[in-house]
Amino acid sequence: MSQSAKARLYVTDDLAAGASVLLSEPQAHYLKHVLRLEPGATVALFNGRHGEWTARIDGFAKRTCAVILAEQRRAQEPDPDLWLLFAPLKRARIDFLVEKATELGVARLCPVVTRRTVAERINLERLRAHAVEAAEQTERLSVPALAEPKPLDRVTAGWPAGRRLLLCDESGSAPPIAAVLRESRAEAWAVLVGPEGGFGETELDALRKLSFVSPVGLGPRVLRADTAAVAALAVFQALTGDWRMPRRG
Amino acid sequence: MSQSAKARLYVTDDLAAGASVLLSEPQAHYLKHVLRLEPGATVALFNGRHGEWTARIDGFAKRTCAVILAEQRRAQEPDPDLWLLFAPLKRARIDFLVEKATELGVARLCPVVTRRTVAERINLERLRAHAVEAAEQTERLSVPALAEPKPLDRVTAGWPAGRRLLLCDESGSAPPIAAVLRESRAEAWAVLVGPEGGFGETELDALRKLSFVSPVGLGPRVLRADTAAVAALAVFQALTGDWRMPRRG
Repeated sequence: MSQSAKARLYVTDDLAAGASVLLSEPQAHYLKHVLRLEPGATVALFNGRHGEWTARIDGFAKRTCAVILAEQRRAQEPDPDLWLLFAPLKRARIDFLVEKATELGVARLCPVVTRRTVAERINLERLRAHAVEAAEQTERLSVPALAEPKPLDRVTAGWPAGRRLLLCDESGSAPPIAAVLRESRAEAWAVLVGPEGGFGETELDALRKLSFVSPVGLGPRVLRADTAAVAALAVFQALTGDWRMPRRG
Repeated sequence: MSQSAKARLYVTDDLAAGASVLLSEPQAHYLKHVLRLEPGATVALFNGRHGEWTARIDGFAKRTCAVILAEQRRAQEPDPDLWLLFAPLKRARIDFLVEKATELGVARLCPVVTRRTVAERINLERLRAHAVEAAEQTERLSVPALAEPKPLDRVTAGWPAGRRLLLCDESGSAPPIAAVLRESRAEAWAVLVGPEGGFGETELDALRKLSFVSPVGLGPRVLRADTAAVAALAVFQALTGDWRMPRRG
C-alpha cells in the first residue's frame, strides 16, 4: 500500500478520472469503523481492467460510501496466462491455496472433481472473498477468475489449444519440474494438483496420454496437495513467468 | 505411507533390528484409539539417523505402546543443507510456514527477531509438533532442527563460513531468484524472510552489505512473508536442491 492511500479496495465499476463509485457495505464499514476514515481521506481502487486509481472519500451513507476518482497511479498490466486446476481440499487448506495462488499471480482458479475427490461442497463465495483480499493486500491489479467446479475429464475434454498443463505427478517417474519448464515453449499454461489421496492410477494414465499434459516431479518428498500447488506455481513464475524480470520500483 | 504400515511415527530412539521401542503417550493413544490397531499390526518408524524401519506392535500398556523393530525399509538420506530464517508471524501463518518448510526439506528452522517483528512469544513446542507431523505425513526421513529465537543481527554476526543467505528482498531492486541461484556455487544455503511489515530500511542496508548475503527478488507482486518463504524454498529446491533428480520409486 502506498504512503498516501489508507486502504486498497477491489471494485467492479469502470475507473476514470472524476467518476464516482459507490463502495459495498462491507467496504464502507471497513473504512468508517475499522480504519475510522473521514470524508476527504484517500483510498486506492482497482478493478482488474483500468489499473489502480486514487480516490477521495466523498461521504458515507447508511450502507455505502461514495468515493470520487482522482488519478490513475498504476497502469493495468497483463497477468501471466496461468491457470490452477485443483481438487477441493479441506477448508483451511483450500482457503490457503486460493490466497497463495492469488499472490503468485494465477489468472484463473479452476476447481476440478477427480475420482478420489472427497465430495465436499465448494463455497465459491468464500473462496472469491479470499482471492479479493489477497489481491487487495498484495498490490495485485486483478483478482483471479474463479470457475465453477467441473469433473476433471470434462475440463480436459474441452481443453483449449496451445495451453500446456503441468501435472504435479507424485509417482516418482515424472521428470523434474525445472527440466520440463526449461524445454517447453508454450505461451499459455496451467498447473494441476490432485486431491489429498492423489490421483487414481487409471486417471493418472489417462492424463499422461493427453498431448497437452506434461507430468512434472516435485522432488523426493511427498508433498501435500496445497504445498505441491504453491511450490509448482512459484517454480513456474521463477523460470517461465513474470519473476524473471526485476520488480517495478 | 506404504501399503503395509498403518502409521508412520517419528521417535528419538536408536533403530536397529530386534530393538524394542516404547512410544510416547500420544502415539500410543493414536495407534490404539484413533487407528484401533491391535498387537501384531505393523507401523513404520524413523528417527532422522537410521532410515525408516517397520515395527510390530508388541503390546499396549497404560500410557505407552511397545513395538519391536523388524527391518529397515529405507536407508537414511542426507537432507539438503538448507536453513530457513524467519521472523515470527501470527499463529496460523507460522504454523503453516513450519509445515510447508518441513515438506520442502528444510534442515533447520531459525526464528529471528527483526526490528519490526511484533514481539510475540514463539511456542517452540507447538512448532516442533507441526514439524514432526509434517515429516510423518510426507515420508520425510528427518525432522528439521528448530533453533531458539535470536535477534537477527546476532545470527548474522555468528554466520558460518561458506553458507550463502538468500535474502527475500521486497524492494524491487534485487535480481530475480532464478538468476541468482544459477550463478552461485555455494554448497550450504539459507533463506531469510522478514516480518509482515518487511525489514527496516537500515536493517536491509546492513544485510545487503554482508558478503554472504544474496538479495533475491520474487516477482512483481508483493508477497506475504509466509508465501515468500515457501516460494523461495520451492524455487531453491527446483534449481539448486534435491528436486533436480527424479524421485526414488
